[in-house]
Amino acid sequence: MSTQTPDSSSNYLGINVSGASLLAALVSPEGQVVARGEAAFSNGDLPAQITSLVAELRADAASPVVALGIGVPGLVNPETGRVVVSNDLPSVVRADLQTELARTTNLPITLVNDANAAAYGEYIAGAGRGSRNMFYVTLGTGIGGALIMDGKLWYGDSGFAGEFGHITIDREGIECTCGNTGCLETVASAPNIVRRTHERLIRDSTSSLTRLGLNKNFTAADIAHAANEGDDFAMLMIERTGRYIGTAIAAVINLLNIQRIVLGGGVMDAGKLILDPIIREAGRRSFQPCFEATQIVAATLGPDAVPTGAAMLARDAMRT
Amino acid sequence: MSTQTPDSSSNYLGINVSGASLLAALVSPEGQVVARGEAAFSNGDLPAQITSLVAELRADAASPVVALGIGVPGLVNPETGRVVVSNDLPSVVRADLQTELARTTNLPITLVNDANAAAYGEYIAGAGRGSRNMFYVTLGTGIGGALIMDGKLWYGDSGFAGEFGHITIDREGIECTCGNTGCLETVASAPNIVRRTHERLIRDSTSSLTRLGLNKNFTAADIAHAANEGDDFAMLMIERTGRYIGTAIAAVINLLNIQRIVLGGGVMDAGKLILDPIIREAGRRSFQPCFEATQIVAATLGPDAVPTGAAMLARDAMRT
Repeated sequence: MSTQTPDSSSNYLGINVSGASLLAALVSPEGQVVARGEAAFSNGDLPAQITSLVAELRADAASPVVALGIGVPGLVNPETGRVVVSNDLPSVVRADLQTELARTTNLPITLVNDANAAAYGEYIAGAGRGSRNMFYVTLGTGIGGALIMDGKLWYGDSGFAGEFGHITIDREGIECTCGNTGCLETVASAPNIVRRTHERLIRDSTSSLTRLGLNKNFTAADIAHAANEGDDFAMLMIERTGRYIGTAIAAVINLLNIQRIVLGGGVMDAGKLILDPIIREAGRRSFQPCFEATQIVAATLGPDAVPTGAAMLARDAMRT
Repeated sequence: MSTQTPDSSSNYLGINVSGASLLAALVSPEGQVVARGEAAFSNGDLPAQITSLVAELRADAASPVVALGIGVPGLVNPETGRVVVSNDLPSVVRADLQTELARTTNLPITLVNDANAAAYGEYIAGAGRGSRNMFYVTLGTGIGGALIMDGKLWYGDSGFAGEFGHITIDREGIECTCGNTGCLETVASAPNIVRRTHERLIRDSTSSLTRLGLNKNFTAADIAHAANEGDDFAMLMIERTGRYIGTAIAAVINLLNIQRIVLGGGVMDAGKLILDPIIREAGRRSFQPCFEATQIVAATLGPDAVPTGAAMLARDAMRT
């Protein structure tokens, strides 16, 4: 399909179509980002928007681009290359993105779930470097995960492995969008951190958060910011969130005895204030010899994670 | 080390040293048990006892025995072949069992954790047959697990993968022997089923269990028996136990999206009365597309599971 054969000067393109805009990265065979691109993500013709972004980055590239990886917010059937389920981006499901992009770009196309792409990006070039077995968690509007075993993404039997957000951490907890009650996501996703904080503010009308001048429409990022400014109540909310996450992390550690756990996503912008209670609670709730073998670290690639991982999976697809 | 080269008529020996007695099985290369042996397990010279049991089975064997696998209740370091940790059988830790048995039997020796051996036995010849990815759970005095990914045991980074019993299912639960609170083991192991039942009996002095004539020293097996005889209260205790187990099973399903989950151990003697609520609760608490891809079944090999798995791992060790 591609007219190019990969060599050491070849580059790979990765694009994240999960966010508010299309983020692209031109990536070296070793996983280093050599150029970035961005395009507004309108609700129009997604293949045309991607094609135009690809053309732009190829025009500027010093060496040939040999494959394109696309991170999408949904499940990808590895055999057909089609997006099977996507709550966040239903239009992708309808489009046969792979065939269409292969035609317009003349590149081999690899579609991949965004959490899997981010995990692989961190594994190759970020906080997962040097490990062989890694669990990746993304903590944002939703909570997802992905598993790398012996250097390879573990997709599971139907492509859904790593559903970290739906681990039950409170059997008596509130209902989740998935139908279960007490999933991690019901307390630790960004919207649920906001919800829990609102509930506490109603209970405690003289909260320090209002002293900090936050308006009624504050976000999880605002809470993290207030916590980092030293607000006691915000710190408490972040600390409790970390303990919930740590409880679920302990299940991963116990089941997999895994070398490294990498935590990414917007909720991790709280930094040490959330990482420390995660590690503490995971330590308290893990079988000790498993915990001692695990490094729990923050992701380092930020918005480059998905494009990097998607590009590297496109690279791998050419090698097989 | 062995003077025999394996061929299609070779057999493999497996011995379980985890129980009250030593259980041995002579196993075909395909995993079929062709003969069994048993010896009292005194606290004396374990290598001598194993050696004598091996000699007995070899004397009766129609075809040559080419390797010996031993299932032990502890962690085995795959590199040294030594038992690293065993709460249940400390004398094994001190003995260099592998070297000693290699000398006395002139067979290649493979030591393996008993839960891993049982998992592999079920995978090759029991309820796991036909799967590639399988999680095994043993529910008895303790609760353990083992993971088979792509046909191979997944030991984890330090050999401790599958610590299913120490998954937190109740953050406010009672203290576990491991130091955590609310581990699955604190409510669903055989002694804890008895403890919970005693607590309910104290609360409810006219319980039907006493009508069934159980004395004060009843066991988990007695409760399962009473449940199968139709005792409402015993059925309730078994059903709740199943729901606790199902909660932890859901975490496995969500993380691994695994094809098959095999449940063994004495607690599973309650049969359908415990399997049904496990499946129901796992279904309620799993991400549905993951759950739909998973078969949850009872183990079928009973006491043959550990010797069969140990023998098959000894077989595999000769092939590498």
